[in-house]
Amino acid sequence: MNLILLNNDDFITEDRVRLSGRRLDHIITVHRAKADTQLRVGLLNGKMGHGLITHIDTDFVELTIELSQPPPEKLPVTLLLALPRPKMVKRVLQSITSLGVKQIYLINSHRVEKSFWNSPLLQPEHLHEQLLLGLEQARDTILPEVHLRKLFKPFVEDELPAVCQGTRALVAHPASEQFAPLQPNHPTTLAIGPEGGFIPYEVDKLVACGFTPFSLGERILRVETAVPVLLSKFLPV
Amino acid sequence: MNLILLNNDDFITEDRVRLSGRRLDHIITVHRAKADTQLRVGLLNGKMGHGLITHIDTDFVELTIELSQPPPEKLPVTLLLALPRPKMVKRVLQSITSLGVKQIYLINSHRVEKSFWNSPLLQPEHLHEQLLLGLEQARDTILPEVHLRKLFKPFVEDELPAVCQGTRALVAHPASEQFAPLQPNHPTTLAIGPEGGFIPYEVDKLVACGFTPFSLGERILRVETAVPVLLSKFLPV
Repeated sequence: MNLILLNNDDFITEDRVRLSGRRLDHIITVHRAKADTQLRVGLLNGKMGHGLITHIDTDFVELTIELSQPPPEKLPVTLLLALPRPKMVKRVLQSITSLGVKQIYLINSHRVEKSFWNSPLLQPEHLHEQLLLGLEQARDTILPEVHLRKLFKPFVEDELPAVCQGTRALVAHPASEQFAPLQPNHPTTLAIGPEGGFIPYEVDKLVACGFTPFSLGERILRVETAVPVLLSKFLPV
Repeated sequence: MNLILLNNDDFITEDRVRLSGRRLDHIITVHRAKADTQLRVGLLNGKMGHGLITHIDTDFVELTIELSQPPPEKLPVTLLLALPRPKMVKRVLQSITSLGVKQIYLINSHRVEKSFWNSPLLQPEHLHEQLLLGLEQARDTILPEVHLRKLFKPFVEDELPAVCQGTRALVAHPASEQFAPLQPNHPTTLAIGPEGGFIPYEVDKLVACGFTPFSLGERILRVETAVPVLLSKFLPV
């Protein structure tokens, strides 16, 4: 938690918040903060700044808040990701969020096991928690939107054309011969398949929708490695 | 396991191997292979190619092997990584290996908890297992070398000058103002700190050894995200 995320509900006056629960625990056990300690804070979907602790005990902490800085720039990427196996979903969502993606489509694919869609991790409150953890990690405040699309064909045919309009549309496909040097500042829709890749039918459907297949090279990467590798191309390093 | 890794011990004639245990299980349960199925294979620290199953039962599998292709190019990066917390070590080592790093130094740092060094995961046979999993994932055969360095100062003063000789030496340091666009083809020694970063003393010691600090940008990334983000700069995408 490199940033304490605030909600409008936390404010008790215009510039003071009162926090308890997970954030209080973190402030006590990790920051070991006392009265007069200054912490980085940010308003969910708003500005970032500092909070000065005016009172702290085991029940709640109160901070005086000053918010003046904008959150970091978002990544100009809409990500389509074949639903990863449940034990990976948490980590991958946190990682994607920490890298600044704001539009995430978790989609079906032939090689996504049907049971993955029944995971309790996909319930809105659990997804929301992973997104918050990613924001807190990266010091960002803008909540990504996660869209679950359990049917591949209707999604690609009916919805995807509007999603990727005006963007460069790319699908990572190990079997492709082509490298597609990613262009850091160009709005991009990026599709990443499941372990084992999209099947040819799916690649064809994406190509028909305007996607260009490209290869990451000879190495086959796990989704948790491939995602940051691809998204890193849009970071300022 | 996108590649079945072979050892010299597996060969029963010049071009035939017999496998049991973990690799047999994988060939049966994941590949669902039968006689005459062809699988990708590679000789540890040697060439890659194909194996044709000539016999398979629940005790062992035999394959006729043809090895003709070189493994993928290694990444021109020597990685210095502050020892991650034990639950991350497996994943991070697999990820680093799958990306093609061949020299890995797990080093101490002020913010590495002392107890991390006592993890059974750091025993040679457990490290070896993670490296194999990374190679099998990425279809590579060249085993990385992992060096454990429990003392920061003697390592940096006595050993590191020789390690980074002839390379561009960089340390990822969130507090740095500088971006250092990584140069894909230039031999590089890359140091990545623990969660919370190297302390100023450590950065100073690395700078004295010729390292240039650089920042990844405003976002603070977890080590499992930062590692592929940084290494990706040396991949051909």
